[in-house]
Amino acid sequence: MYVSVNAATSADGKLSSRRREQIAISGDEDFDRVDRLRAEADAVAVGIGTVLADDPSLVRHDETHRASIRGEDASPPARVVVDSTCRTPANAAILAGKPETYVLASEAAPDTRRAAVEDAGGTPVVAGEERVDLSGALDGLESVGIERLLVEGGGEVIFSLFEAGLVDELTVYVGDTVIGGRDAPTLADGEGFVSEFPELALEAVERLDSGVVLEWNVL
Amino acid sequence: MYVSVNAATSADGKLSSRRREQIAISGDEDFDRVDRLRAEADAVAVGIGTVLADDPSLVRHDETHRASIRGEDASPPARVVVDSTCRTPANAAILAGKPETYVLASEAAPDTRRAAVEDAGGTPVVAGEERVDLSGALDGLESVGIERLLVEGGGEVIFSLFEAGLVDELTVYVGDTVIGGRDAPTLADGEGFVSEFPELALEAVERLDSGVVLEWNVL
Repeated sequence: MYVSVNAATSADGKLSSRRREQIAISGDEDFDRVDRLRAEADAVAVGIGTVLADDPSLVRHDETHRASIRGEDASPPARVVVDSTCRTPANAAILAGKPETYVLASEAAPDTRRAAVEDAGGTPVVAGEERVDLSGALDGLESVGIERLLVEGGGEVIFSLFEAGLVDELTVYVGDTVIGGRDAPTLADGEGFVSEFPELALEAVERLDSGVVLEWNVL
Repeated sequence: MYVSVNAATSADGKLSSRRREQIAISGDEDFDRVDRLRAEADAVAVGIGTVLADDPSLVRHDETHRASIRGEDASPPARVVVDSTCRTPANAAILAGKPETYVLASEAAPDTRRAAVEDAGGTPVVAGEERVDLSGALDGLESVGIERLLVEGGGEVIFSLFEAGLVDELTVYVGDTVIGGRDAPTLADGEGFVSEFPELALEAVERLDSGVVLEWNVL
């Protein structure tokens, strides 16, 4: 499984304000770049925090690169929620319609929640006891043909993936604003590292819109 | 007064880990860049949080650019602590010896603390009632000949300066690591903005050491 993390942050590393409202950080050139990243992905993932805050559908009706990269009849990328206890609401946009949505959960997810997710059209993938075992869950995705996963946030799931040593590539659009806030979500939240910090190698730097894209490989 | 903010962050926007230990984020090329920034500054400032966490002296014995930029007998940059209630300890390295250290405080700083700072060699600059009025305090610095201030952190004082609309330039070295942590200090902490976010203009992008320097002007 190749895991690519993509995010847009303010110049001070925030994904949004302390109110967790979506803030337009990038512009058309970056949307095109992200569209290309999605076209390369078999599935697009977010964390349950993002589902609860933004209710994204992860369905794009204006994909421009997928057909040229994958062929005219290419199906859109599957959807993934990292959601240890299956809190994804039955009416969440991410569960509605197609394509397939996988909910990565742990044994701690109540049976009723797992059933609710299934009734709403989702497919639970269970690995791990208290928290989802990300490595095991990604193996589960691989077994259904997902070889390349694009993670779009938020900061909790991104940190968890780094903590599990599962991230291959990190791409960050750094935008022309300051959001600030000790409680605002950042690119990598969670507990944080205090030693053995993941090491990156800067692969590319490109000015785009009024900001810059930094492309890092994870060593 | 021209205010330049300079910081080094991880790829995820952190100044250090949740333990607030100093982490080597940049390398020799970036040290040389910062040395040049210092040479252009009349004073170097940090917040009281940085004083209490790191006890920096803000005295550099290995300045390489100052003499060539300012002349052989140029004095080193004055030192500044942003410290509303004068909590700077009497034995703080930033108060010891030369050059002059200005402690920007508010009326809320107890007289005993102000006296202690003076006894230890510092010069209180009082502006504002509960919290230091940064605009007034910087006017005070200007009146003693400080025209160019280099702010080296931490995230609380950087946010306060942005909040007061006092930052002219923001330079960020983005390094090749991930620190993570929802409680780790970031480039701009404080309450954070929820609207009317400061706007920046990207002036320069330069690869340095194994990271990249982003130079923003504040609009």
